[in-house]
Amino acid sequence: MRTLRDRFGRPLRLAVVGGGPGAWIGDMHRGAAQLDGHWQVVAGVFSSDPERSHAAGMALGLAPERAYGDVAQMIARERGRDDAVDAVAIMTPNDTHHPYAAAALDAGFDVVGDKPVAHDFAQACDLLQRTRKGGRLFAVTHGYSAYPMTRYARHLVRDGVLGDVRLVQVEYIQSGLATRVEDGPPNRRYDWILNPQRSGLALVMGAIGCHAQHLACFVADASIARVSAEVGALMPGRRVVDHVSALLAFDNGARGTFTVTQAAAGAENDIRLRVFGEKGSLEWSHRQASYLQLALQGEAPRTIGRGDAFLPPEILAAGRTPRGHPEGLREAFANIYREVAAERMALALGETPVQAPYPRIADGAHTMAFIEACIRSHQDGRWAQVAPLPQ
Amino acid sequence: MRTLRDRFGRPLRLAVVGGGPGAWIGDMHRGAAQLDGHWQVVAGVFSSDPERSHAAGMALGLAPERAYGDVAQMIARERGRDDAVDAVAIMTPNDTHHPYAAAALDAGFDVVGDKPVAHDFAQACDLLQRTRKGGRLFAVTHGYSAYPMTRYARHLVRDGVLGDVRLVQVEYIQSGLATRVEDGPPNRRYDWILNPQRSGLALVMGAIGCHAQHLACFVADASIARVSAEVGALMPGRRVVDHVSALLAFDNGARGTFTVTQAAAGAENDIRLRVFGEKGSLEWSHRQASYLQLALQGEAPRTIGRGDAFLPPEILAAGRTPRGHPEGLREAFANIYREVAAERMALALGETPVQAPYPRIADGAHTMAFIEACIRSHQDGRWAQVAPLPQ
Amino acid sequence: MRTLRDRFGRPLRLAVVGGGPGAWIGDMHRGAAQLDGHWQVVAGVFSSDPERSHAAGMALGLAPERAYGDVAQMIARERGRDDAVDAVAIMTPNDTHHPYAAAALDAGFDVVGDKPVAHDFAQACDLLQRTRKGGRLFAVTHGYSAYPMTRYARHLVRDGVLGDVRLVQVEYIQSGLATRVEDGPPNRRYDWILNPQRSGLALVMGAIGCHAQHLACFVADASIARVSAEVGALMPGRRVVDHVSALLAFDNGARGTFTVTQAAAGAENDIRLRVFGEKGSLEWSHRQASYLQLALQGEAPRTIGRGDAFLPPEILAAGRTPRGHPEGLREAFANIYREVAAERMALALGETPVQAPYPRIADGAHTMAFIEACIRSHQDGRWAQVAPLPQ
Amino acid sequence: MRTLRDRFGRPLRLAVVGGGPGAWIGDMHRGAAQLDGHWQVVAGVFSSDPERSHAAGMALGLAPERAYGDVAQMIARERGRDDAVDAVAIMTPNDTHHPYAAAALDAGFDVVGDKPVAHDFAQACDLLQRTRKGGRLFAVTHGYSAYPMTRYARHLVRDGVLGDVRLVQVEYIQSGLATRVEDGPPNRRYDWILNPQRSGLALVMGAIGCHAQHLACFVADASIARVSAEVGALMPGRRVVDHVSALLAFDNGARGTFTVTQAAAGAENDIRLRVFGEKGSLEWSHRQASYLQLALQGEAPRTIGRGDAFLPPEILAAGRTPRGHPEGLREAFANIYREVAAERMALALGETPVQAPYPRIADGAHTMAFIEACIRSHQDGRWAQVAPLPQ
Repeated sequence: MRTLRDRFGRPLRLAVVGGGPGAWIGDMHRGAAQLDGHWQVVAGVFSSDPERSHAAGMALGLAPERAYGDVAQMIARERGRDDAVDAVAIMTPNDTHHPYAAAALDAGFDVVGDKPVAHDFAQACDLLQRTRKGGRLFAVTHGYSAYPMTRYARHLVRDGVLGDVRLVQVEYIQSGLATRVEDGPPNRRYDWILNPQRSGLALVMGAIGCHAQHLACFVADASIARVSAEVGALMPGRRVVDHVSALLAFDNGARGTFTVTQAAAGAENDIRLRVFGEKGSLEWSHRQASYLQLALQGEAPRTIGRGDAFLPPEILAAGRTPRGHPEGLREAFANIYREVAAERMALALGETPVQAPYPRIADGAHTMAFIEACIRSHQDGRWAQVAPLPQ
Repeated sequence: MRTLRDRFGRPLRLAVVGGGPGAWIGDMHRGAAQLDGHWQVVAGVFSSDPERSHAAGMALGLAPERAYGDVAQMIARERGRDDAVDAVAIMTPNDTHHPYAAAALDAGFDVVGDKPVAHDFAQACDLLQRTRKGGRLFAVTHGYSAYPMTRYARHLVRDGVLGDVRLVQVEYIQSGLATRVEDGPPNRRYDWILNPQRSGLALVMGAIGCHAQHLACFVADASIARVSAEVGALMPGRRVVDHVSALLAFDNGARGTFTVTQAAAGAENDIRLRVFGEKGSLEWSHRQASYLQLALQGEAPRTIGRGDAFLPPEILAAGRTPRGHPEGLREAFANIYREVAAERMALALGETPVQAPYPRIADGAHTMAFIEACIRSHQDGRWAQVAPLPQ
Repeated sequence: MRTLRDRFGRPLRLAVVGGGPGAWIGDMHRGAAQLDGHWQVVAGVFSSDPERSHAAGMALGLAPERAYGDVAQMIARERGRDDAVDAVAIMTPNDTHHPYAAAALDAGFDVVGDKPVAHDFAQACDLLQRTRKGGRLFAVTHGYSAYPMTRYARHLVRDGVLGDVRLVQVEYIQSGLATRVEDGPPNRRYDWILNPQRSGLALVMGAIGCHAQHLACFVADASIARVSAEVGALMPGRRVVDHVSALLAFDNGARGTFTVTQAAAGAENDIRLRVFGEKGSLEWSHRQASYLQLALQGEAPRTIGRGDAFLPPEILAAGRTPRGHPEGLREAFANIYREVAAERMALALGETPVQAPYPRIADGAHTMAFIEACIRSHQDGRWAQVAPLPQ
Repeated sequence: MRTLRDRFGRPLRLAVVGGGPGAWIGDMHRGAAQLDGHWQVVAGVFSSDPERSHAAGMALGLAPERAYGDVAQMIARERGRDDAVDAVAIMTPNDTHHPYAAAALDAGFDVVGDKPVAHDFAQACDLLQRTRKGGRLFAVTHGYSAYPMTRYARHLVRDGVLGDVRLVQVEYIQSGLATRVEDGPPNRRYDWILNPQRSGLALVMGAIGCHAQHLACFVADASIARVSAEVGALMPGRRVVDHVSALLAFDNGARGTFTVTQAAAGAENDIRLRVFGEKGSLEWSHRQASYLQLALQGEAPRTIGRGDAFLPPEILAAGRTPRGHPEGLREAFANIYREVAAERMALALGETPVQAPYPRIADGAHTMAFIEACIRSHQDGRWAQVAPLPQ
């Protein structure tokens, strides 16, 4: 990896949209991108108010002329620069994801987009087509599937260690909307979150459910074919969706269960996954992100840890400290950014890139198809098909 | 309690059907019944072969004339004795539960029945009616809801500590049928288990699913009104049901999820429950049966333990050793037997018994209605109503 | 085992001294003895007040003439009976252990004694000699080393799975004396506990420290040769010892640490052991008594559970329910009682008994030597030798 | 904090000594320093071979003239620059810590030093005096005491929530030297580590023991006054110290135990701390760094998490993501760097800095006094006094 970076001769240049100073998700993206020296944040738009945006960019140390006032301006000006950015990272409210990503792709930039990739499946397919047409890269920052141990879980599944996958259980439960935030003082964040036009077809799915669904599909190495879902609000009177529970049928024949909610009072924020196969099972929880439980039938369960010497090299490389030294979501995000950089650098050098497992726009589109199927299933009171991706 | 036992003047006399020496569930019942000195096992039938039955009874220390050859004989003879048994405990293959229980009830004995109480809902309603008509007691040995900490979980719910219950998650997952036992050497136990005529409408529900459903209803203090279920076999080609996953709607408005399987390769045998309410949540796992997690919104989660001095007296009384000294399923079973004894002794003395929370035939009948609804939902591919109990 | 019991033809008869109804440790002994049908409690003394003793025995269902008023009377009368007891179980305040045990041994009874076995090492050696001279059995109820998983830990050590043992860490920490019980209302239990003449040379050692020391020696398969200890009270102004921490040197060259206290405010009652060897380590905690962590160098740590099919038969036999069904201290005590019974029955039948691993008077004497060495080390401010057992 | 940074007008400039590309501890320091935008790494020496050093600096993106060939050169040249570095961070083999730090201090630079700060107590006192004399800052990167939850633990102690501290247990156990690395192929790292002249008086203390000791003192808000220690090697024949266990007496009257080893085969790398006070106890493990267990006597234990809304603002500020999103050692290190920056910026602006809790040279000197006392105690077989710091 380092060699590729050296051959390329410079870090890639990143523009960010959203996530100004003080927004933790912005710090997460910017910090992750720069963690390994593969990216430099050099341009950005941080607010819909041009003055605030400019001030924020300055506070982050950008050159004044690259602390832009709006996205259209940034894209237009960057296109004209010799040292134009290589990619645009998008971490704005959900309803802006599609237009900003479409504009960036059309201008010839790679995209690192926060989830959900779009408002609905049609928009997501549109981005998928633009990405394909332009030969661009489009990464979706599902950090949970970028931990060494979730990567290793997928490795075990693909390697046949579990045999055929038979049952997948995934959940993402948190308490962020467990109180009546609707009744609290106005708040920029809740303004768009509590507005279904802006936050999307099912708030909880865009916020956290997509992470759970992607993680399950990623590790089980499968797509969801059919679903029977309950979609609604645990909080009485709430206008947005704060809870989805579902029964799943995967395209490889496995069964599954899925529960996501932001309205679980008192709950620890946690995403948990269990995969049961023919020969054994594995279990992972975000709360113990550096560990993976592997239990083969007839053997004592084992706790595998990030850094264990017997892990495959690509899994070891996804960690940065020895076993027993905690790493966090930042390093998982950094894995995604590093892989996108490696792929872009390799392509630029005319080399064949390693096929890295970071989530892509096709994954984001499958998520949107899944969300729409959940809603349809709930409305009809029966199982619904998940739409396939366009060829 | 001791006082009541002293006033009554003798331990109650118990006949057991099934569970001879070496059968762990038999040891469990007999040991639990006698743990606190409220019951004495004095009669029994232990095999469908009269000679084996007699020998087993002798090995257990019964008087020769009370080591019976079959149930009908036992019931007939016991009725005629001055020192007749007070109750019959049934732990035979599932298809015999209804006839044996019906015979015992009709002969005027109380019943302690292992689950499932019957083959189907109609049979269960029949037992319910016989129990009511005869003024008998009918306990179902769902030991999981008899632990001090699941009792306390229910106490917290009923006390309003969680506020309205909004989401209930329950699962019972094990690996007992994770291999192709169908292909193994013939085995008395698998003979009846793998035969749907004998093991019931849905094997996994009779074996463990009923425990999960009862525990959820018990703690959430609610019944299940509707269900959307997947009912089948994770093991390819299996004739009996080894997996059920379901979405639940409770009669108090709460939502729920339910997963039970005996075909989870590598899985720890565990029953887990989480209840999320308006103000907080609680979590319990059989693996840590002596502890209960309580997390109120805005506060740090607490780990409450059996024996904590602040617990209500009836919860403390359900434990027998100080916090930090493990107790097991035996003591939970013993709570059920002790409560049945206390109720019968109080009634015999003309006193008003304390309303103990042990599971009764009405609970067993609700379980059968739930199982039938799951099957109906699966067949129809949509939500199904759970039939109400007869008035 | 069952066969031996059948050949012997009757359960052994047990007399108990102390632990009347309502005393949890009494329930524990009586329940454990009778759990598997190898013992019947038929006689006892339950109070220093003859009338209370008699009433307690009656409440426990003893024949009136065997609910004795004092120990001397019991021993004298039982000796004269055709159906005399086979053993005496002692669970009285510490200062009475030696005289009662000596009397029982001298009268030809086996002894099951609660810990500590005596007031000091000299008394313990005296009991050891009497036991040897009379050809009696003398079991000490260190229940913690009678769990299947601590038994298996020892098995792994003896089997060489860890290689040479290098470091042993053991602790027993609880909060029973974390408040100023000295200032509370008078209380029969505190009366003798807070009186060093009655509770022994170092209260915390007699109460719980002996369990920790025995468990460490049992699993590490070693004796303690030297110690550097701090012996005192964490609670300011306390007259009895509520805390001992020590550095250990075992006779097999291993190093160790030892901490026991009853004055740890807020602490979970827990005994924990870790053994590090040449090739790996193991860890056990009473809080998860049915599990053992085994971590071999270079491999992922494994969680072995009671009931795992690959365990040796004698370990499996020390459990009574499948993996995932909690068992408790009662079953561990029952293992001790069952093993004493098996040994006595085999001897009575002229057979060679299996050498069972229950703790014996020699272990109890080593404990007393260790306690005296701790005190000497503390007084001298340097390492002290642990006295060897008499040949 | 951001305001101070803005008022100061630029990030501080950092020179690093050691930790070139590929050394995880170097990535840790450089990444942590730059995480929040308070520092920029602009100069460095990365190897004792000037050419390798220069190449490494270039690979890290330094200006060619600031990728120095040796420390003396760097200090001399940086002193002469208008944009000289503000501080020097040192992460070289232990024997170079004192000379490099002394040179940096004498040249007027602040120092961020990896542990141990020096070879012995005398050297550490020398650095303490130089730091005082020059009015410099000297931070020691004990990252473990820079986690939000260990900070909060100290807060609880200082706030009196536990009452008087009575017992402190700390350990740092790992398996890095659990095999005969002495017999392996030559290795740059083992070269200096296995040489007591270079790695220090007691290898395990310089490597990890100092972290454990500092964490204990930090949280208990106390110094160690006396110690009874065993200092040696668990690995037979090893020339360096790989194990220390000790009994501690703190200056506030608390007792303690201490165990550190790198030779624990199979052990998870973990540092654990428990503090028992008059009213309750707390427990922290590096493995669950984002959580703190608090157990008050008579109440159920609580699991407090990084991000909990009720935490004091300075504790919340030490975290960067919401509860339930893992953070790691990188963020803990970043807290130290951020605090040093804030202090230096405030001093430069003539403001009174907030008294931040990062470890300083006085703490490092206490550590060296403790190590020397352990060795003395071991040699003498009795308790030893820990030397006080010079006034």
